[in-house]
Amino acid sequence: MHIRILNPNTTLAFTHDLESAAARLAAPGTKVDARSPATGTPSVESHVEEAIGAMGVIEMVRDGDRDGVDGYVIACFGDTGLAAAREITAAPVIGMTEAALYAAALVAARFTVITLPPRTRIHSDRVLRETGLTERCVVRAIDLPVLDLLDEDAAVRAAFEAEGRRALEQDHAEAIILGCAGLSGLVEPLGQSLGVPVIDGVMAGLKLAEGLVTLGLRTSKRASFAFPPLKGLTGAYAGLMPKG
Amino acid sequence: MHIRILNPNTTLAFTHDLESAAARLAAPGTKVDARSPATGTPSVESHVEEAIGAMGVIEMVRDGDRDGVDGYVIACFGDTGLAAAREITAAPVIGMTEAALYAAALVAARFTVITLPPRTRIHSDRVLRETGLTERCVVRAIDLPVLDLLDEDAAVRAAFEAEGRRALEQDHAEAIILGCAGLSGLVEPLGQSLGVPVIDGVMAGLKLAEGLVTLGLRTSKRASFAFPPLKGLTGAYAGLMPKG
Amino acid sequence: MHIRILNPNTTLAFTHDLESAAARLAAPGTKVDARSPATGTPSVESHVEEAIGAMGVIEMVRDGDRDGVDGYVIACFGDTGLAAAREITAAPVIGMTEAALYAAALVAARFTVITLPPRTRIHSDRVLRETGLTERCVVRAIDLPVLDLLDEDAAVRAAFEAEGRRALEQDHAEAIILGCAGLSGLVEPLGQSLGVPVIDGVMAGLKLAEGLVTLGLRTSKRASFAFPPLKGLTGAYAGLMPKG
Amino acid sequence: MHIRILNPNTTLAFTHDLESAAARLAAPGTKVDARSPATGTPSVESHVEEAIGAMGVIEMVRDGDRDGVDGYVIACFGDTGLAAAREITAAPVIGMTEAALYAAALVAARFTVITLPPRTRIHSDRVLRETGLTERCVVRAIDLPVLDLLDEDAAVRAAFEAEGRRALEQDHAEAIILGCAGLSGLVEPLGQSLGVPVIDGVMAGLKLAEGLVTLGLRTSKRASFAFPPLKGLTGAYAGLMPKG
Amino acid sequence: MHIRILNPNTTLAFTHDLESAAARLAAPGTKVDARSPATGTPSVESHVEEAIGAMGVIEMVRDGDRDGVDGYVIACFGDTGLAAAREITAAPVIGMTEAALYAAALVAARFTVITLPPRTRIHSDRVLRETGLTERCVVRAIDLPVLDLLDEDAAVRAAFEAEGRRALEQDHAEAIILGCAGLSGLVEPLGQSLGVPVIDGVMAGLKLAEGLVTLGLRTSKRASFAFPPLKGLTGAYAGLMPKG
Amino acid sequence: MHIRILNPNTTLAFTHDLESAAARLAAPGTKVDARSPATGTPSVESHVEEAIGAMGVIEMVRDGDRDGVDGYVIACFGDTGLAAAREITAAPVIGMTEAALYAAALVAARFTVITLPPRTRIHSDRVLRETGLTERCVVRAIDLPVLDLLDEDAAVRAAFEAEGRRALEQDHAEAIILGCAGLSGLVEPLGQSLGVPVIDGVMAGLKLAEGLVTLGLRTSKRASFAFPPLKGLTGAYAGLMPKG
Repeated sequence: MHIRILNPNTTLAFTHDLESAAARLAAPGTKVDARSPATGTPSVESHVEEAIGAMGVIEMVRDGDRDGVDGYVIACFGDTGLAAAREITAAPVIGMTEAALYAAALVAARFTVITLPPRTRIHSDRVLRETGLTERCVVRAIDLPVLDLLDEDAAVRAAFEAEGRRALEQDHAEAIILGCAGLSGLVEPLGQSLGVPVIDGVMAGLKLAEGLVTLGLRTSKRASFAFPPLKGLTGAYAGLMPKG
Repeated sequence: MHIRILNPNTTLAFTHDLESAAARLAAPGTKVDARSPATGTPSVESHVEEAIGAMGVIEMVRDGDRDGVDGYVIACFGDTGLAAAREITAAPVIGMTEAALYAAALVAARFTVITLPPRTRIHSDRVLRETGLTERCVVRAIDLPVLDLLDEDAAVRAAFEAEGRRALEQDHAEAIILGCAGLSGLVEPLGQSLGVPVIDGVMAGLKLAEGLVTLGLRTSKRASFAFPPLKGLTGAYAGLMPKG
Repeated sequence: MHIRILNPNTTLAFTHDLESAAARLAAPGTKVDARSPATGTPSVESHVEEAIGAMGVIEMVRDGDRDGVDGYVIACFGDTGLAAAREITAAPVIGMTEAALYAAALVAARFTVITLPPRTRIHSDRVLRETGLTERCVVRAIDLPVLDLLDEDAAVRAAFEAEGRRALEQDHAEAIILGCAGLSGLVEPLGQSLGVPVIDGVMAGLKLAEGLVTLGLRTSKRASFAFPPLKGLTGAYAGLMPKG
Repeated sequence: MHIRILNPNTTLAFTHDLESAAARLAAPGTKVDARSPATGTPSVESHVEEAIGAMGVIEMVRDGDRDGVDGYVIACFGDTGLAAAREITAAPVIGMTEAALYAAALVAARFTVITLPPRTRIHSDRVLRETGLTERCVVRAIDLPVLDLLDEDAAVRAAFEAEGRRALEQDHAEAIILGCAGLSGLVEPLGQSLGVPVIDGVMAGLKLAEGLVTLGLRTSKRASFAFPPLKGLTGAYAGLMPKG
Repeated sequence: MHIRILNPNTTLAFTHDLESAAARLAAPGTKVDARSPATGTPSVESHVEEAIGAMGVIEMVRDGDRDGVDGYVIACFGDTGLAAAREITAAPVIGMTEAALYAAALVAARFTVITLPPRTRIHSDRVLRETGLTERCVVRAIDLPVLDLLDEDAAVRAAFEAEGRRALEQDHAEAIILGCAGLSGLVEPLGQSLGVPVIDGVMAGLKLAEGLVTLGLRTSKRASFAFPPLKGLTGAYAGLMPKG
Repeated sequence: MHIRILNPNTTLAFTHDLESAAARLAAPGTKVDARSPATGTPSVESHVEEAIGAMGVIEMVRDGDRDGVDGYVIACFGDTGLAAAREITAAPVIGMTEAALYAAALVAARFTVITLPPRTRIHSDRVLRETGLTERCVVRAIDLPVLDLLDEDAAVRAAFEAEGRRALEQDHAEAIILGCAGLSGLVEPLGQSLGVPVIDGVMAGLKLAEGLVTLGLRTSKRASFAFPPLKGLTGAYAGLMPKG
């Protein structure tokens, strides 16, 4: 089985970290790799960058299907490009946000997302509405730009830990969701200091993707995610889909 | 005041129709024009086309701000690219779907969207969730591709009328929303035959945009739609925003 | 086009202010005036006063239709008498609360109503439930009686500004709705000091009413707002509707 | 204990029927009577008539408190005037609609309201939203004017029975709510023919009112239903509240 | 009429208190008694204890029907065993939690449950979801084990009063629900010190049960609560239902 | 890794089938077995049987933890005993209903549960409310008792296929959930004839459990599912938990 992690941004350091972390958790027999788009944006923390990232996701799924990939995980909080990805492949596609939320719902009654920076709170809210988990989840944000995470140092961890403590006390949170890709290194230390499950959606998505592939469950091609009737695309999009 | 209609697809016949229809309804003193992206997709009836259309919307808003546009209307059911557009301009941006829903909510207790083709039902559902009007609105779909609307002939009208009658009887609808741009020609005949308000979201959006401009209400730049901190964009996206 | 602002209370100073403020924002070609009921209550800040105000609204719409009014705006937070008004005229009727909420939803992801006095919080909650925007909006109240607004002095403004700052910080509000009619003078200074859009629902309602009239959208007369089958009214109500 | 049924319309035949039916179900020691307003509307089946009925309810509660009434039931589907009534007395006030819904929720998982005429469906929807029971209840309507109920003959019963059967089959209803006052005579025959509980909200409200009085539970006077600060009322309203 | 209070735990001191309190509030002609299961758990403050308590409720209803009981009240916050109880008898069964919530909704716009210990908050949330009152109610918890209530001393009362004050100020609560059985002694003193209605669900349930019995409303036997087709039960369950 | 399937009923034929089906889908290195309670009920299709089944689940988890089980799946639609099971073990526990719903939500926009018999519809509704997926899912029921499934013959398959077709056409379903354990044999044939994903929650739960164990995610022991403070249990429950 071949699972591919799709990093919608172009920062290769994140992509490499995701691939390493995923390799440690993949099942025996699962080949897992990670990809970034050739061009795009170094991070996704705005709606415009989500739009750019979505184009990257589409291209990576197109290429992945040529490579025989069996399942995909979108490694960006907000699940950039998820619906389009589901549309152009029959392989299952999992967003890290929905994966994290479902994992949290299986181990805790209430939970809190800690995302960053604050302007992206709306992206979490959108996925919460779509998953229907709004009433069980609070969204918090810490005031750091995404690229600061590359230096996953004491400052980042301290910020998450402080916000996590507020979540336990003020939100009655029983689990914490890391609201950004590339933070799997925080799962264990934060889990130990906070005493509750700490969830990285990319790794949760990896296991969900493996599970769906084993079950033979592929994206429904009836209506909402049927292959798109693409024709007449022009400009940079002309070659997007050789045979829609 | 300068309002611009943004057609996210590249079919100029739609763009011209939108400009003509809008010109007839614009207030004295409002200059209204319509634009399509230079390249892209001839229609938006899939998630991939929504992604392509969103890139077009971003480019058209970037250009619109250079032209001194005061307000925008996105003329695509599903409001493709709306959040990104709100982010890169302070001018108000209105989606035709939300405009239609709010107009309907002001003249009727319950209403029905008639969209097309059936695979796009999910786009209407998404906007309904965001506007909070799910319980007052039913979504119906007729089985025609978008480009058939160019020939706005008897068949298209008959399909809308038949579905509209079902909406009145089965959904208790008190108004009908046309779930696609480029159908303003149906407003009057359908309204007469069905006996309830029939709403074209582009025209409703035009009046909402004019209203917000007159009131001096511009998109909030606090958090969710603050100007994006774009930097490091590469490839086709490198020149997207000269100065984010 | 003739738009009439309906002030459900009998305090003429409010009515005059509303007419002046509306005149400044009306489109060229729009005649706008404001009315109060002949008798009733000097302010609406209780359920009983809402009931009295609703009777005033009914009488004012009855008279407005005789005067050839094309659209109405109800200038009372809570939209007193809105459903009854929609029932007895085919002209569009807009409540200031729903107008403010829709305007806010078009320029901000989250927003806060600041109403007064605290006992009227329930009126805002009711309109939020009907518009479906409960999850995007917080209701705050300041402890001042409505008639204190007549002296729109430093105290009133300071109270709104202080509560507005709390909304930005604690509610993640990106826009502020003034939860009372007669406060349009606060829109500009508050907007400047808070740095987010500040919305007066009466003025938003004026532009919505103008828009619906231009679009030819009138209240649906199918079911919920069909003309009422009034007959056999007695006492003070006997002459309410000469010909229902 | 003294419970008073408030009929917001002026049709005394209904009032007398309500008083008789209530007398049969009142607890030993409960004095129950029914009142209509001196003037108003012969039936409530529109928003305007709801507004008129609300004024009647206010006057009847004002008078009831002078008479030492301990609890009130509003006998009109839609609970006309309920909030205002709660505001001007500390005695508990129960709406027949909420009473019927709570009773149904205690004996069935899902239930259907059968109201009349169809234009009043919106009144039921409003109470459903306020009670939070929207997902467990369907609203159906039969096409008869309210005053036809005075002749509670075979036609009325047949219409309810036919609609009730549709509710059982299509809505999975497990109980039926009679969506109008004055139908307690249908409870037993309909219950026998349909084989599920059939609920008359006025009688359910009577028992709820008795219960609250026995428990010493009176309407909270903190915020939403605090006594109103009425002053400066003019015209017909001047004498409404001698001492607010 | 015979109403029985079902205490799902085995602490007889609670059972005796419930019987005494109920006797004081029962209508003339109502016989009221209380029962505990023969074996089980001394308190219900966990999911496992809820499961044990549910078995006790089933046995007590089975025995109650043999005794000719006309209606039941489950005296445990969380309404342990309610659905099963409704299934095996046609007599009405009321949960104290739903009873408290409906009583609160009849006398206040917003209210707060004060339950204990904090781990049981999830039980209140579950009933709120089922009754649909989530948006009008906040759940608070104080950190005391249930058995401490046996000594209903100053400490318990002080804890409720302190939390109640926070509810009034922070939640805008207009009524308080005591989130545990056996606290009816707090109703009057807390009501006096807080100045809002304080509600004990067991007593509210008693009055609801009496009301339903008088109205002749019994649990619907169509679908959700039809008598169960029990057969083939083994072990301790073999004799549970002599004739299902 | 050791995953155990918990069948809450005593019909060993089901238990054996579950174990065989799970063995075929388990990951390399996963030991999977299935258990029934020693005594109880041969099927769970009522609330009383759910209560009995919950006691069986508790006992099976208690025993499973002694056996070193790493994760559990509850094989009963309705997820009988799930909260109690989560409380008494730190190992992850997955309900087949929530597993099916999350799997469906990952491959389809809308989906339909086909459960049986009709009286159990309420159990599905309960889980839908808890997972928040009510708006994306319809519940249908076919009129067969659970034990008829033992003969998984043409009649059962025909009934599911007929109901499935209605789901595709009337509900716009894009995937089908089998609303009962023991139907994994239907997944492939139904999927082929209906052309959409068909989901068996037990197998979905198996893969979710494996995933959570690999991720090191265990049930949060903060508040809602903390180990219960059991003490003083009597009768058959005395030995339930040797050391709570």
